[in-house]
Amino acid sequence: MTQTRAHNRRIVLARRPRGAPSAEDFRLESVPLPVPGPGEVLLRTVYLSLDPYMRGRMNEGPSYAPPVALGAPMTGQTVSIVEQSHHPKFQAGERVCAEVGWQDYGLSDGRDLLRIGAMPHLADALGVLGMPGLTAYVGLLDIGQPQSGETVVVAAATGAVGSLVGQMAKIRGCRVVGVAGGAEKCAFAVGTLGFDACLDHRAPDLPQQLKGAVPDGIDVYFESVGGAVLAAVVPLLNVGARIPLCGLIAWYNLDKLPAGPDRTPQLLVTLLRNRVKLQGFIVFDHYDRRSAFLKDMEGWVKAGKVKYREHTIEGLEHAPQGLMGLLQGDNFGKVVVHVADP
Amino acid sequence: MTQTRAHNRRIVLARRPRGAPSAEDFRLESVPLPVPGPGEVLLRTVYLSLDPYMRGRMNEGPSYAPPVALGAPMTGQTVSIVEQSHHPKFQAGERVCAEVGWQDYGLSDGRDLLRIGAMPHLADALGVLGMPGLTAYVGLLDIGQPQSGETVVVAAATGAVGSLVGQMAKIRGCRVVGVAGGAEKCAFAVGTLGFDACLDHRAPDLPQQLKGAVPDGIDVYFESVGGAVLAAVVPLLNVGARIPLCGLIAWYNLDKLPAGPDRTPQLLVTLLRNRVKLQGFIVFDHYDRRSAFLKDMEGWVKAGKVKYREHTIEGLEHAPQGLMGLLQGDNFGKVVVHVADP
Repeated sequence: MTQTRAHNRRIVLARRPRGAPSAEDFRLESVPLPVPGPGEVLLRTVYLSLDPYMRGRMNEGPSYAPPVALGAPMTGQTVSIVEQSHHPKFQAGERVCAEVGWQDYGLSDGRDLLRIGAMPHLADALGVLGMPGLTAYVGLLDIGQPQSGETVVVAAATGAVGSLVGQMAKIRGCRVVGVAGGAEKCAFAVGTLGFDACLDHRAPDLPQQLKGAVPDGIDVYFESVGGAVLAAVVPLLNVGARIPLCGLIAWYNLDKLPAGPDRTPQLLVTLLRNRVKLQGFIVFDHYDRRSAFLKDMEGWVKAGKVKYREHTIEGLEHAPQGLMGLLQGDNFGKVVVHVADP
Repeated sequence: MTQTRAHNRRIVLARRPRGAPSAEDFRLESVPLPVPGPGEVLLRTVYLSLDPYMRGRMNEGPSYAPPVALGAPMTGQTVSIVEQSHHPKFQAGERVCAEVGWQDYGLSDGRDLLRIGAMPHLADALGVLGMPGLTAYVGLLDIGQPQSGETVVVAAATGAVGSLVGQMAKIRGCRVVGVAGGAEKCAFAVGTLGFDACLDHRAPDLPQQLKGAVPDGIDVYFESVGGAVLAAVVPLLNVGARIPLCGLIAWYNLDKLPAGPDRTPQLLVTLLRNRVKLQGFIVFDHYDRRSAFLKDMEGWVKAGKVKYREHTIEGLEHAPQGLMGLLQGDNFGKVVVHVADP
């Protein structure tokens, strides 16, 4: 392909952050292009996805995936073009979802690649039609199982996942209340996404506001935040409520436990009395649902029932700022880094 | 029946306890015998069940059942004899499970009554073949879904519920580790109930001991305790673990939240990373499973695969001491009050 650069820029983990990451935790490097071996393809990054889970990978110690090693490129999903192929099933020029990470080029043996079908905008493969979309689909429909007439509360309501959760809950006939950061996001959630209400998570009287917004209590709480939003939700959970848990962004930067009292008994006594199911899940376990998800979501998008918003960051070198902003809620919609044109 | 007394003794809630209940929170009264109206039966109590959930009913405020009113008899399940019947479906002399509470006599319109079949010991209808048995059955098998070769940890391992959970997990081919109060109970759990190991929850190094006892981690944690046992379990939960939650006895006497730090993030981050399902349940929601439960449990008891132990308290007047002891873990097996002979 004509756009092949002479070097591979990559952003590596320079230091493990304590608390919120800062610019010094990342380092931009320039290294020679990797050379594909037998059975491998060379991939060129077009879009890089930024997601809250990346904060966890920067820590040492076990999580659901190994941590990024010091000096290694940050991990991440990409939309990539196959530049060279020594793999029988992939041809140069094909567009794929890959796990190249924060760099211009990467190699793959093909096992992690998903071909991208027809799509109005390539970056959608990282958002509404990608991992965040599947996260919303599995979490809300399979775990949350919302019934018509029930009340669904969605944290991070205008984020890549939350915005889809709320719209799917509306499609299912639920009352939907979002929680988001600030008036502009809340206006978008109600005016464009069609939520019934949306509350600012920074409001000091969030618990009272939420109580007023859910006159019949809460049947499903889609959790990706933790912190003050969870604290406001717990007293309002109905008997038989479900909590799909896919993230805890308010707590990702913790380097020690918050001050007391210990609220664990409050949470668990509520889960017991009200027979609530709380289920942690990671989208990687649920790729068996991908084809059902794509069929439904493509239909909803075409029919105008699901809308979405992308927050684009220009240039690989700005990915660190993008992740730092995402962890503070500065983004408005799905965050992708535009690394190069296809 | 010949044993009918002239008066009905009953124990009422005299005061709402703060923290652990004390004798002054109860009052023994003597009142005239209740008189059954049309469609009602008069019931005479033989055994009264004492259970941890009763502590919750002594508090004001909402729970899964209304609180006991001040001056009203404490609620509780009984094995009762039908003394007089104005109900077409019940005959004098029949033995039933009822909700008479802490008193010699009570009335029923029949809707809460379950006939007791052939049973070697009547009090078993309140234990291994009653509510605790069904709690263990639904919680372990339906919610916990243990698979052969998995590791199951059971809190309150010699209690009415825990002792059955552990033995059913052994029947299912699991490694079973109990946690109980003291060496005598632990010896019983291993020697008589057949658990693979049992640890004293009072040991200061419980977290280290538990880690040593579950070399492959924990797949199912049957939770009825909370507190230090839960804290020791959380770091050892495997990917895909299940936590059926049927009680939190360590926290029932709390009148305020424990001191910090706030451990909620620790619990939830683990549930997220390891994709754990935590589900609160109350046995009253699961009576549709009663006939399957009775069939299985009667078979296991007859075959000697399930053993159990009863802790009998003589005399209704000693029920308050019995409940206070139960909340401190003084009991050894299912606690019943022997109120009168059949």
